[in-house]
Amino acid sequence: MKLTDLITPVALIDLPRMQHNIERMQAQVASLGATFRPHVKTSKCVQATEAQIQAGAQGITVSTIKEAEQFFAAGIRDILYAVGLAPSKLAAAAALIGKGCDLKVLTDSVQSAQAMAAFAKAQGLNFKVLIEIDTDDHRSGIKPESAALLAVAQALESPACEIVGVMTHAGSSYDLNTPEALIAMAEQERAGCVRAAERLRQAGFACPIVSIGSTPTALSAKNLEGVTEVRAGVYVFFDLVMHNIGVCTKNEIALSVLTSVIGHQEEKGWAIVDAGWMAMSRDRGTQKQTTDFGYGQVCELDGKVLEGYTISGANQEHGIVSRAGQPDLEIAKRFPIGTQFRILPNHACATGAQFPEYQALDAQGTVQTWSRFYGW
Amino acid sequence: MKLTDLITPVALIDLPRMQHNIERMQAQVASLGATFRPHVKTSKCVQATEAQIQAGAQGITVSTIKEAEQFFAAGIRDILYAVGLAPSKLAAAAALIGKGCDLKVLTDSVQSAQAMAAFAKAQGLNFKVLIEIDTDDHRSGIKPESAALLAVAQALESPACEIVGVMTHAGSSYDLNTPEALIAMAEQERAGCVRAAERLRQAGFACPIVSIGSTPTALSAKNLEGVTEVRAGVYVFFDLVMHNIGVCTKNEIALSVLTSVIGHQEEKGWAIVDAGWMAMSRDRGTQKQTTDFGYGQVCELDGKVLEGYTISGANQEHGIVSRAGQPDLEIAKRFPIGTQFRILPNHACATGAQFPEYQALDAQGTVQTWSRFYGW
Repeated sequence: MKLTDLITPVALIDLPRMQHNIERMQAQVASLGATFRPHVKTSKCVQATEAQIQAGAQGITVSTIKEAEQFFAAGIRDILYAVGLAPSKLAAAAALIGKGCDLKVLTDSVQSAQAMAAFAKAQGLNFKVLIEIDTDDHRSGIKPESAALLAVAQALESPACEIVGVMTHAGSSYDLNTPEALIAMAEQERAGCVRAAERLRQAGFACPIVSIGSTPTALSAKNLEGVTEVRAGVYVFFDLVMHNIGVCTKNEIALSVLTSVIGHQEEKGWAIVDAGWMAMSRDRGTQKQTTDFGYGQVCELDGKVLEGYTISGANQEHGIVSRAGQPDLEIAKRFPIGTQFRILPNHACATGAQFPEYQALDAQGTVQTWSRFYGW
Repeated sequence: MKLTDLITPVALIDLPRMQHNIERMQAQVASLGATFRPHVKTSKCVQATEAQIQAGAQGITVSTIKEAEQFFAAGIRDILYAVGLAPSKLAAAAALIGKGCDLKVLTDSVQSAQAMAAFAKAQGLNFKVLIEIDTDDHRSGIKPESAALLAVAQALESPACEIVGVMTHAGSSYDLNTPEALIAMAEQERAGCVRAAERLRQAGFACPIVSIGSTPTALSAKNLEGVTEVRAGVYVFFDLVMHNIGVCTKNEIALSVLTSVIGHQEEKGWAIVDAGWMAMSRDRGTQKQTTDFGYGQVCELDGKVLEGYTISGANQEHGIVSRAGQPDLEIAKRFPIGTQFRILPNHACATGAQFPEYQALDAQGTVQTWSRFYGW
């Protein structure tokens, strides 16, 4: 199959770019002495994940139990479920462990630790648990110096629950856009998580794993002393938010939406395409950044960026392509009906999730279908 | 199955509310003398669409060829594909017609009309075509008084293309929030589309169908003279955007996301739930309206609105529940880990699309699974 055979809209993976991104991250983390555990919530795709493992990744990170089930069924055993385990999911987690999955789960509260311990004891099983650490005051987790850290560790009650480590995610790195600030946040993430591990070890817990990461901090870190593994997700595709943060160029963005021109409003300088917000997702992550790309950056069919052209507005199945500044009153001649574009997305995790499958485009220009799945 | 058996997050349909919404719209349109053709892009679900047809709907509207294929396979013949037909989709549209589907397609340009006519002639088939009219300067379509209207009609070249009508969608009704403005927009939508039909008829084209509609204008119209059919989609579920526009109450919103508390940040007054933006969608449609509901309105498990509590922030699989104004420092006691909520969405079309299936909850409190499909 060729690109021009596809019925648009289509989620397109540029395979050489994806492979470059995978190797870049793997080399960065390895050079600092840690292992790498990709967060596969971004692709939800077995083939993309296999490419990460082939490049040296050790284990994966997932954001839902369904992802764990799907990737375990595809042959991956070492899985970290990096969202606090709700009581209603204890049975599903236990079932995976019972089938031989080396599943690690997460908690950040005494309430949930007690629920895990009680369930594990009643079922006669063992949960491997990481304690979630809050290193940037952003979302979930326990502060490294908090008394709650040891209280949760005690509530986990060996041997029903084995404390295998600590984990943090400096999600506030998404709000930064200078190398200095990113390097500082990476160090804050590292230091806070290492400190929490030290406190647990001083209290007699082994805590072998120290797991940190986000795409911006992973690519900015200068030192990973005390860290055993790094996690990152969106780097596999990158996107315009990451471009604005400063950790990739537009030409490294591996995911795009292939779309076709279906109409024009010539006097407004608009081309209407069949990628609206259902295809691009409603993610407007670049809105509050230094460059707002609307619903995406328009590129030619071969991937060349059309500077200044974005999806400036979107309805469910309609996108409005226009030029920033002066309207392009020649747009109907320049891009007649049937013209195909690639649109780079604001947020690859959100855009990928709008599609049941990817079309993976290789360097020879042929495409193959890679399926992806829902997270629940 | 009961609600408490479900592993969250789940897209929940409150069936009595959905049925009420269906009957309300059907009665409104029938009372004004038009037929009703629901836009099923909202639910993408056979059972929900069957409920609309049972209540009196005549034919359906779809936003993609895949939706047309899926609903035709489910036994629905009369289908309007209400997005301008791209050249790459001509073959798929023709294949549906060849199987017996009474498919109607859309154009608003000479370029695309010529492509349709050339394809139909070459294939020896007939496309039933509606011409898209722009009645609110919002998106696609031809202005009612434009010379392009007759040029497109001529380009369609009978008998390869039969002009079966005109169609408009006053999408700018979504920017309004008073009954007066909505009534005026409904009249503008009606008058513009009827005028376009008159011009076509004066030029010798039969133009039997005059199709208008959006949920806000359909529910606000006082007069449908000259209109043959009305279309609307999101009314089947309603959502917080529609609530802010003023066409439904919170208690009419039939779609919600069932979620569980997985953690807290007590000193911030936060409960963390397992419905993040992946479950709610990234749609922040209420952000620019008079009341901003963040990523959704929090309700108790039985559907009772918890006034002031919203999903105030979201990551991919984490939502932050907080109270507007004064933080709720008792939130961990009030809503302990495992507490289930229903979250009303900003935009039902976007939220539904995040899920592979709905759980349909009847008045007796039992749920059954209704599958839904992707649009491509």
